[in-house]
Amino acid sequence: MTTQQLIDQIKKKKSFLCIGLDVDLNKIPKHLLKEEDPIFAFNKAIIDATHHLCVAYKPNTAFYEAYGIKGWQALEKTINYLNDNHPEIYTIADAKRGDIGNTSTMYAKAFFEDLGFDSVTVAPYMGKDSVEPFLAFKDKHTILLALTSNEGAFDFQTKSVDGVELYKQVLETSKSWKNSENLMYVVGATKAEFLADIRKIIPDSFLLVPGVGAQGGNLQEVCKYGMNSSVGLLINSSRGIIYASQEEDFAEAAAQKAKELQLQMAVEL
Amino acid sequence: MTTQQLIDQIKKKKSFLCIGLDVDLNKIPKHLLKEEDPIFAFNKAIIDATHHLCVAYKPNTAFYEAYGIKGWQALEKTINYLNDNHPEIYTIADAKRGDIGNTSTMYAKAFFEDLGFDSVTVAPYMGKDSVEPFLAFKDKHTILLALTSNEGAFDFQTKSVDGVELYKQVLETSKSWKNSENLMYVVGATKAEFLADIRKIIPDSFLLVPGVGAQGGNLQEVCKYGMNSSVGLLINSSRGIIYASQEEDFAEAAAQKAKELQLQMAVEL
Repeated sequence: MTTQQLIDQIKKKKSFLCIGLDVDLNKIPKHLLKEEDPIFAFNKAIIDATHHLCVAYKPNTAFYEAYGIKGWQALEKTINYLNDNHPEIYTIADAKRGDIGNTSTMYAKAFFEDLGFDSVTVAPYMGKDSVEPFLAFKDKHTILLALTSNEGAFDFQTKSVDGVELYKQVLETSKSWKNSENLMYVVGATKAEFLADIRKIIPDSFLLVPGVGAQGGNLQEVCKYGMNSSVGLLINSSRGIIYASQEEDFAEAAAQKAKELQLQMAVEL
Repeated sequence: MTTQQLIDQIKKKKSFLCIGLDVDLNKIPKHLLKEEDPIFAFNKAIIDATHHLCVAYKPNTAFYEAYGIKGWQALEKTINYLNDNHPEIYTIADAKRGDIGNTSTMYAKAFFEDLGFDSVTVAPYMGKDSVEPFLAFKDKHTILLALTSNEGAFDFQTKSVDGVELYKQVLETSKSWKNSENLMYVVGATKAEFLADIRKIIPDSFLLVPGVGAQGGNLQEVCKYGMNSSVGLLINSSRGIIYASQEEDFAEAAAQKAKELQLQMAVEL
């Protein structure tokens, strides 16, 4: 998907909501456990109930890998269901991959070609030649970890590197990489005040913002500091939406939570 | 597996060789492509021919994920074959994972419990709470990326953070994490002279050293600067061994290359 198609969808739906499909079998409604594929059954119900309220879905691959082959099959069924039934929706494999050149190409093939995701999250620690293989794919985005929403972000990401915080070095350096127009960035909402500085370095790029809701981030603050003329934001919510209820009404409850966020977003657009 | 069991195996086999199982269907002998599972058939033949010469195998997960479900099944069959037939051999999932706390726990379950690996490689960018969930597993190792063997290592890893290179900060900081005795570190052999400095920070830890052979690293230099009283080294070779021949004699050719390295290692022990 092109960036422009994503922007068009945001304007049409008046939403820049991304729903995180982080499916934990201990948290989904009990009645789904008797389904042949409980993970996919859960995702399908969530997607059916919320697809008109969001512009993107983001399965975190850890939750699928933890269930082995069955988990990987559920991930494949989920992305196929999305691509077959809602091709206008943007898809993010939250995989946080990254390896040396030829190996990153294998990861890129796994997520862009084999599974058919529009984008994948990538860790920057190994530098340019670990990220450029992802950037080489046309109409696919590489979402680079810059400033994450967890406590550990302060261990290295905010440390001063030659006078500039490491995450800002990552932003600045990545702009010089080949096909850098295919980059987006992960920036945690728990640090909304950092967004003003970030926008000075990357005014035009899309930001994937986790941490609104469960992790304490504030939507209005994120928009105030992070929005650009093309919106430039995808706000992710996972647990706050998909586990809004653990009863039979879970999909309606998820839709209700997504609707609340979408209405708040419409005000900001 | 405990660290002591790994050391015992190294002393018994006079080898600290790790063989990287990075299987690319474009590079394996053509006659294997008619097998039902060419990736596993290749791995099984390599393992059967080399298991007495090495102490560890390291499949890089990218090469399996690139083939989707079939790739994941081949990975599962490979680790099961190793655990069933060669339980004394140390196994490394070269996955370079890392995510916020509860999500890292899912990755740890995927590799330590579902697949049954002894260890997994993890990226440090997200800090303490992204790594500690892996460290919580008893008799499992977390192999943290410190200084990688690729060009991009110089983009961030060697940059000065408050006067000390980032990779040294990673080493130093990680020592304070809970269960840090379960840490090992990835240190690329292409920078063998850095090993002396690294040993000052982490004298006792095991180092997983890629980049000997295909990437230009030198075994003697690595041993000179990196070996400690418990050996403390796992030297990885992937392409140089597994693609020594692309004909029907590939397994014998791999064994020959592994034997050459094992003999060089025996001299160093």
